[in-house]
Amino acid sequence: MKPNTFDQITVKIRKFVAEREWDQFQKPKDLALSLTLEAAEVLEHFQWKNEDEIAEHLKKSKDDLADELVDTLWYLLALSDKIGVNLETAFERKLKINQDKYPISKAKGNNKKYTDY
Amino acid sequence: MKPNTFDQITVKIRKFVAEREWDQFQKPKDLALSLTLEAAEVLEHFQWKNEDEIAEHLKKSKDDLADELVDTLWYLLALSDKIGVNLETAFERKLKINQDKYPISKAKGNNKKYTDY
Amino acid sequence: MKPNTFDQITVKIRKFVAEREWDQFQKPKDLALSLTLEAAEVLEHFQWKNEDEIAEHLKKSKDDLADELVDTLWYLLALSDKIGVNLETAFERKLKINQDKYPISKAKGNNKKYTDY
Amino acid sequence: MKPNTFDQITVKIRKFVAEREWDQFQKPKDLALSLTLEAAEVLEHFQWKNEDEIAEHLKKSKDDLADELVDTLWYLLALSDKIGVNLETAFERKLKINQDKYPISKAKGNNKKYTDY
Repeated sequence: MKPNTFDQITVKIRKFVAEREWDQFQKPKDLALSLTLEAAEVLEHFQWKNEDEIAEHLKKSKDDLADELVDTLWYLLALSDKIGVNLETAFERKLKINQDKYPISKAKGNNKKYTDY
Repeated sequence: MKPNTFDQITVKIRKFVAEREWDQFQKPKDLALSLTLEAAEVLEHFQWKNEDEIAEHLKKSKDDLADELVDTLWYLLALSDKIGVNLETAFERKLKINQDKYPISKAKGNNKKYTDY
Repeated sequence: MKPNTFDQITVKIRKFVAEREWDQFQKPKDLALSLTLEAAEVLEHFQWKNEDEIAEHLKKSKDDLADELVDTLWYLLALSDKIGVNLETAFERKLKINQDKYPISKAKGNNKKYTDY
Repeated sequence: MKPNTFDQITVKIRKFVAEREWDQFQKPKDLALSLTLEAAEVLEHFQWKNEDEIAEHLKKSKDDLADELVDTLWYLLALSDKIGVNLETAFERKLKINQDKYPISKAKGNNKKYTDY
């Protein structure tokens, strides 16, 4: 399989929706809502579990979790496409911002970002 | 800019994290939790707004929303990478499942998927 | 049935957990995580639906939705109890803050709070 | 302060909203959406933190967290009131269901509910 670019995945989703004439149902607000709900279904796999229990859970349920991750990706791309956000361009811009915000010399091994807000 | 494949974006995230030695802080459960929180920040842009108000909001805040979409993408790819899920392969598999589950002939213009569960 | 105060509901939850010796599993982080997941299950009832479809849905599924609302309440009270927050005192304090923040004379019929942030 | 029953807290929220003529903006779907977003703000306090870091965080930020818990409670009660769910009656019913589902003799010290789903 030749690797997909972001645009190519987006085109596949757009085609799937268009063939079913579902675009009329896909309001941005509902897509954003579904994005959150799918992310919550990802999170549900980690509920009540410590690290060892998660490792154990992943042994038998990785494909189920992968499905939820794909559903999250799906709505993320569908919403971005719907409102005219090029997710890849936006990623490159944000990556630069993060690189400036967390310079390697200061951020190295420092979890301040993670615990202090 | 040459378009990125999913792997290439993932590699950039992995590099960003490795350079800062942040991998030690990135437990799968915390990545899943952050994924949900970032999705919620996307959803916040749509809170209390009807369709017209959303269109108006997007005129001035699309870049802010794009940043939240990227943050969601970031944790989605970081989590997938961390637990060994190839998101692209998983996408192709799920797309086939969805195509079988919602055959065009039956699903066309039919919002049953969306309202009946 | 004599109406319950918040404390009385909390005591019932605490008793339910204690009788089963489940307190050991109820870390604050997991309770907070479950609170979000239960709220998401409430939200799922509204997914893809407009106002009319929601009214229709509630006719047959109000009890199911009520169960999700209770699950949300449960974790809200359990978490508050666990970390020593008196939710009722906190409510009275926040109500006063909101009354000052949104004086009736200015806020009346004004949805600024809801669309401008 | 005399303890509030659930109804009394709900009446206070209803009064706050009515005085500001905000009821027109409070669609059930938006209330459900806000419930999830407020729960996510609760969860944000626990992001990236282990148990010790959470205990430390609570020392200085318990009131901030209490505010988010109250916001969650607010939308929970407002939504229940809006769609005609008596949360207290629903709680008593669900408590009975949970007592039957997890009999003390079987559930005691057993975290099966928490890790196996």
